[in-house]
Amino acid sequence: MAHINLPEGLPGIRGPMAFRPETSKPLNELAEVLLRSENSLSRGDRELIATYVSSLNDCFFCQNAHGGIAQHYMKCDMNFIDQVKNDYNSTAISDKLKALLAIAGSVQKGGKHVTSAQIEKAKSLGATDMEIHDTVLIAAAFCMFNRYVDGLGTWAPQDREIYVQRGPKRAEEGYANFDPRG
Amino acid sequence: MAHINLPEGLPGIRGPMAFRPETSKPLNELAEVLLRSENSLSRGDRELIATYVSSLNDCFFCQNAHGGIAQHYMKCDMNFIDQVKNDYNSTAISDKLKALLAIAGSVQKGGKHVTSAQIEKAKSLGATDMEIHDTVLIAAAFCMFNRYVDGLGTWAPQDREIYVQRGPKRAEEGYANFDPRG
Repeated sequence: MAHINLPEGLPGIRGPMAFRPETSKPLNELAEVLLRSENSLSRGDRELIATYVSSLNDCFFCQNAHGGIAQHYMKCDMNFIDQVKNDYNSTAISDKLKALLAIAGSVQKGGKHVTSAQIEKAKSLGATDMEIHDTVLIAAAFCMFNRYVDGLGTWAPQDREIYVQRGPKRAEEGYANFDPRG
Repeated sequence: MAHINLPEGLPGIRGPMAFRPETSKPLNELAEVLLRSENSLSRGDRELIATYVSSLNDCFFCQNAHGGIAQHYMKCDMNFIDQVKNDYNSTAISDKLKALLAIAGSVQKGGKHVTSAQIEKAKSLGATDMEIHDTVLIAAAFCMFNRYVDGLGTWAPQDREIYVQRGPKRAEEGYANFDPRG
């Protein structure tokens, strides 16, 4: 049971978002800009960064919800998403994305953990200032979303296949007009 | 020097916000709803929660910028703000606010650190579900803002009096139409 009296039957972030539409609006607008708007980083890459940070924060709902969307965009299986979470360096993602995931991992620990060496490496592999900015803010934003979901003690379906099945619909709907009761 | 090429002369979050107006808009709207909109928690209480979490995250800019605003609302001195950061239980704030700060401190560590006992204590001292929700989201949001500011390696004036002097102007201007170059 959640720590506060949330609308029933809504998993993960949907309960708090239905409870407080005034804060849901900017939260969803932020997710839309960061994860879906025009960007030199693909939507799949950005969802993968969100998934990775959510796994570091041990947020079951977020890592599976965004993992399901990343899987849809990347046309991969759940095993690949899990490999990225467990050891992205051993996967076939680009060296630039690996460097951005390293930055995201440092942001998850705390902003000061990001090193100049990590930034230089990402730049040397072609990452732009905007891509580094967005990586830092996606990672920071999921340190918020993950704490929001778990800090209120929300529930989440435990069958991971459910999130995979919902991925395409979530990808299509986007975040800007997200209906937590939908 | 910041990790990326930000507009010059803008301290703390102002540099990244001027660099990326598309994400600044929802970030500022979120801050406006959480910290300034109509609420049974005073603006001072909410700024104090933001200040406390920013101090736990060791974010110099955020803890001083919001500490300066809290100080303005609470009509106290910097020493009082510092006492709250160091040991809020020994200060003259209300027991309800102490219980909410305990929840905020757990959120800073990670969402799962919030305990049912902390929630029950806050409720027994009169905290509403909405106040608990907003406390969790303020704490979570500052885990984002702090990482955004420090993860990009921004600079900040080291003279803490500057933030105190700016507090009243910042309180008056609010966040919704925040101009990072202003």
